[in-house]
Amino acid sequence: MRICVIPAPGIPAEFGFAGNTCVVIDVLRATTSMIAALDAGAKAIYPVPGPEDAWRLRLQLGDDLLLGGERGGLKINGFDLGNSPREYTTERVGGMLLAMTTTNGTAAMLLAHESGAAPVYIAALRNAPAMARRLLREDSDTVIYCAGTGGRLSLDDIIAGGAIVSACQEAPVEVEISDTARLAMAAYRQSRKDISRALVETEHGSKLVELGFDLDIRFAAEIGASQSIGQFDGVMVRPAGHVLR
Amino acid sequence: MRICVIPAPGIPAEFGFAGNTCVVIDVLRATTSMIAALDAGAKAIYPVPGPEDAWRLRLQLGDDLLLGGERGGLKINGFDLGNSPREYTTERVGGMLLAMTTTNGTAAMLLAHESGAAPVYIAALRNAPAMARRLLREDSDTVIYCAGTGGRLSLDDIIAGGAIVSACQEAPVEVEISDTARLAMAAYRQSRKDISRALVETEHGSKLVELGFDLDIRFAAEIGASQSIGQFDGVMVRPAGHVLR
Repeated sequence: MRICVIPAPGIPAEFGFAGNTCVVIDVLRATTSMIAALDAGAKAIYPVPGPEDAWRLRLQLGDDLLLGGERGGLKINGFDLGNSPREYTTERVGGMLLAMTTTNGTAAMLLAHESGAAPVYIAALRNAPAMARRLLREDSDTVIYCAGTGGRLSLDDIIAGGAIVSACQEAPVEVEISDTARLAMAAYRQSRKDISRALVETEHGSKLVELGFDLDIRFAAEIGASQSIGQFDGVMVRPAGHVLR
Repeated sequence: MRICVIPAPGIPAEFGFAGNTCVVIDVLRATTSMIAALDAGAKAIYPVPGPEDAWRLRLQLGDDLLLGGERGGLKINGFDLGNSPREYTTERVGGMLLAMTTTNGTAAMLLAHESGAAPVYIAALRNAPAMARRLLREDSDTVIYCAGTGGRLSLDDIIAGGAIVSACQEAPVEVEISDTARLAMAAYRQSRKDISRALVETEHGSKLVELGFDLDIRFAAEIGASQSIGQFDGVMVRPAGHVLR
């Protein structure tokens, strides 16, 4: 099993998507919120690029579909939920379908899927150890795709990717760690004493703090808090079982 | 003063070259060899993309110009020197002009220069602390450009870039560290206990070990061994003075 990391969209990694597993990460806050939604019992999540796509789905699927997402960090007018992962509770989303707007995350998932990656997972820091256990069990070459922010590298995503690489590397099996994967692992290991603080120090994290979302960052930093695995089939993200130790 | 790092060619960093200082790094082995040549008293180095460019310069400049470089890790037929930095001794290159073939390094230097970066420096691990002191003294926004290998990210370059960022960050002045710079700094700090080993573990380093260049890696890893500063003016790299503590 080999692991490489695409640090941001458009950066060539050591090997490609086709025929390999892909893990998409957008830790502040899209994939963290999606994992929270799965933890809370959401049936499926449609990642969509913009609010208009979410409204179109609502017309098709009716009131069983909740709309979640943000623009400029704030809840979109008329939506049921914002993009704070702490909103995605069992009371709000248990048993429901969700459409969530996430520009970077949606584009990354679609690109991985259309480029022939299979399976395509989503992950965050909260489920990083569970994700690593799943990858180790499946033992396939894996591309960790950091969604970044507006096409630019986002250190928070790389720290989360590095958490998965690190957990795989610590397992008692042969895992080949590429330069990009080693770089992400270094980013994680340098920050693991205080992940929350490391996230706050990133450019994206510091903007969220300015907007008053400190608690979201603490939530996103709770590594290992979730056992959920989310799998994207080209249309929606669904729970792909829990992983026991 | 702000610092960002381009982890590999083509990756957008937080700010651009125009009007900013640029430091080009190709640590295994082009910029390490160039810094060694400056340490040994070479008057100037012409970085050229290929052997034919080096021969053309020899026709123009005559026997005062030594030719150095490699293809596939080995000395080019008819050249005076290979690309092992340990060959660049006072006896061989003191007082001489040099043409050195380096695909990734030359392309990176030219791109930075043509994009309006000024000054453009070259650096390696050996002169990283001296380079950092120079940057701190000049106090300009700085783009550290990791040349990579064939358009791909090369972790050895990022470790060296991170050594410069780390030295700047430890100085008692205000330095704004972008996400990319923080990522490079993490790569360096994770490996600084044993830089030599970290270089061997990179993809490029492990290939050099296979070719028998272990000693070059140890040489490249000697952080702080050189006080030389090399500056590229669009045509050649010349010594830009030494920096005293």
